[in-house]
Amino acid sequence: MFLGNQYVIGIDIGATWTRIALARVDGSIASRHVFRTPREGDRYTIANTIISSIRREFSNYLDNVKAIGIGTIGPLDLTQGMVINSPNVAIRTFEVAKPILEEFKKPVVMANDCVTAVWGEKYFGLGRGYSNIVYITISTGIGGGIIVDDTLLLGKMGNAHEIGHIVVDTSGKMECGCGGKGHWEAYASGANIPRFAYRLIDEWNLTQNERESPVYRAYLNRELTSELIYTYAKKGDSLALRIINEVNKYNIAGFENVINSYDPEIITVGGSVALRNPELVVEPIVRGIENSKGVVTARPRIDVTPLGDDIVLIGALALALYPPPNLVKKLRYLESISIDL
Amino acid sequence: MFLGNQYVIGIDIGATWTRIALARVDGSIASRHVFRTPREGDRYTIANTIISSIRREFSNYLDNVKAIGIGTIGPLDLTQGMVINSPNVAIRTFEVAKPILEEFKKPVVMANDCVTAVWGEKYFGLGRGYSNIVYITISTGIGGGIIVDDTLLLGKMGNAHEIGHIVVDTSGKMECGCGGKGHWEAYASGANIPRFAYRLIDEWNLTQNERESPVYRAYLNRELTSELIYTYAKKGDSLALRIINEVNKYNIAGFENVINSYDPEIITVGGSVALRNPELVVEPIVRGIENSKGVVTARPRIDVTPLGDDIVLIGALALALYPPPNLVKKLRYLESISIDL
Repeated sequence: MFLGNQYVIGIDIGATWTRIALARVDGSIASRHVFRTPREGDRYTIANTIISSIRREFSNYLDNVKAIGIGTIGPLDLTQGMVINSPNVAIRTFEVAKPILEEFKKPVVMANDCVTAVWGEKYFGLGRGYSNIVYITISTGIGGGIIVDDTLLLGKMGNAHEIGHIVVDTSGKMECGCGGKGHWEAYASGANIPRFAYRLIDEWNLTQNERESPVYRAYLNRELTSELIYTYAKKGDSLALRIINEVNKYNIAGFENVINSYDPEIITVGGSVALRNPELVVEPIVRGIENSKGVVTARPRIDVTPLGDDIVLIGALALALYPPPNLVKKLRYLESISIDL
Repeated sequence: MFLGNQYVIGIDIGATWTRIALARVDGSIASRHVFRTPREGDRYTIANTIISSIRREFSNYLDNVKAIGIGTIGPLDLTQGMVINSPNVAIRTFEVAKPILEEFKKPVVMANDCVTAVWGEKYFGLGRGYSNIVYITISTGIGGGIIVDDTLLLGKMGNAHEIGHIVVDTSGKMECGCGGKGHWEAYASGANIPRFAYRLIDEWNLTQNERESPVYRAYLNRELTSELIYTYAKKGDSLALRIINEVNKYNIAGFENVINSYDPEIITVGGSVALRNPELVVEPIVRGIENSKGVVTARPRIDVTPLGDDIVLIGALALALYPPPNLVKKLRYLESISIDL
């Protein structure tokens, strides 16, 4: 049980930034600290940097810290509290939970970033009052966190939510970063939209108007980026809008799959691509799902998360405050201390 | 708690047959009874037929029956214990749980057929010892039942497993019975394989050899059936094998999606199409998943269910013996009696 003068610490380990927050037991953040995720060092460097940052920034509060929650990029070995062979971090395999637990002698509850995010949505975002919640991030990649009947969906390896890797095109036109073919992420994530756009423009017969688009110039110069495509789409550029329209077909298929696979009451959407371009990303999905004949259960509410870029950090606080029982069972590293969760 | 002289009753309500079993608490079946699901009558006819069948067949045991489990075709209104507007039963909307509960004054635990099946797999099939289990039926339609971390996946309406309705072809070539486009079931279920085959043959340039196939003759006469295609595929007919090979691509995509969505330890496969043609349906899926680069978690075991056509009936017994807590919570009709589950 938490008392009024107690605190929790939340940690969001991202590819570029690591963010740490000290919060009261109502979730309100008392203090936060952000630093670049170390790019050089050994498997302990990231945890050690987090530990010294906590010691330095939150030293006056440490006696009153009840628990620590961590949301991190994956893939994870949850049982050992480690990140294993992450394609997006310079130090690919590193310790997370154990060194922090041993240093502070507090329970450390850790999960992958999207799982952490949906737990944050449930307690501090739009998920309040719902038992069946999906959070989807459309960012460099596409990922999800899922709560079914108030239970966090984890699966045998904690990977029961790799919704970016659902095949939405069995013909396998585009290849995913994971090596798979036809995965949603291969068509519609920030990193892959340009690749898909090159392929589309290669195939299309362009109008004169489209050939005069700055997007076409960028295509010729091999300088296409997601940002550029969305920027010109917002200005009404017809080639940019034609590309976005194709991307949105895959997003709508992806959302239809999520609805038919998990039957959520609400889906919240985050991630840089969605948060920066809600009218070009989220609104077409909402309309597409409204008009789809392929949704075989009651349609969920679909909305942009109010937690924005803080969702993983807030989720980490939620993990510390309300540890999900089925997650805690998987965290074998917790056995090394006697914990009061 | 169950005692040695106690029994449970399991009921499998299918489109054509209704099957009832009386079993001991170890799951062994003491007696069973099968009859045609009534095709005429009102919303109480099916339940009344079940009630009189139980009274007639199991009268000597009724005092010792502890609970009744039911697996039924859907869609369901779980809270009211009803089947609502089922496309596959002559009496489309009918009462199930309440009349049976009121007649026998025993707890009645009901779920849809695939959800029931996976619960049977967990307690009496290949799922024993696993916490993350998926059962997939490839039959007239394609459906699934899912257990994640020992919890039955239900979702807000009990529909968190409509895996046949996952989009595997965003181009939407084939339309599903539900009205959706590009759903797995539209390419690979028993009812839809012939429709997909017509489309494929329409598009293909056939070899002379293929044009001499009995499958091509059936195509010309509009007499294609799944059974015919599999029968000739077993004989090595090149056109039948070419069709099956296309169907299998969609099955492999579907299984890849299930693995990436739910991260199971084991997937068991049933349903008439799979059970009758394991070498042409299940073996290619096993090989396809082995060779896929798009599986982003550890590969699960994939195998044909040992429970065969009895899986829903056995699952119904498992529901009675081991009522899933999150399912029971949804069954509002249970509130009408005081139950000891």
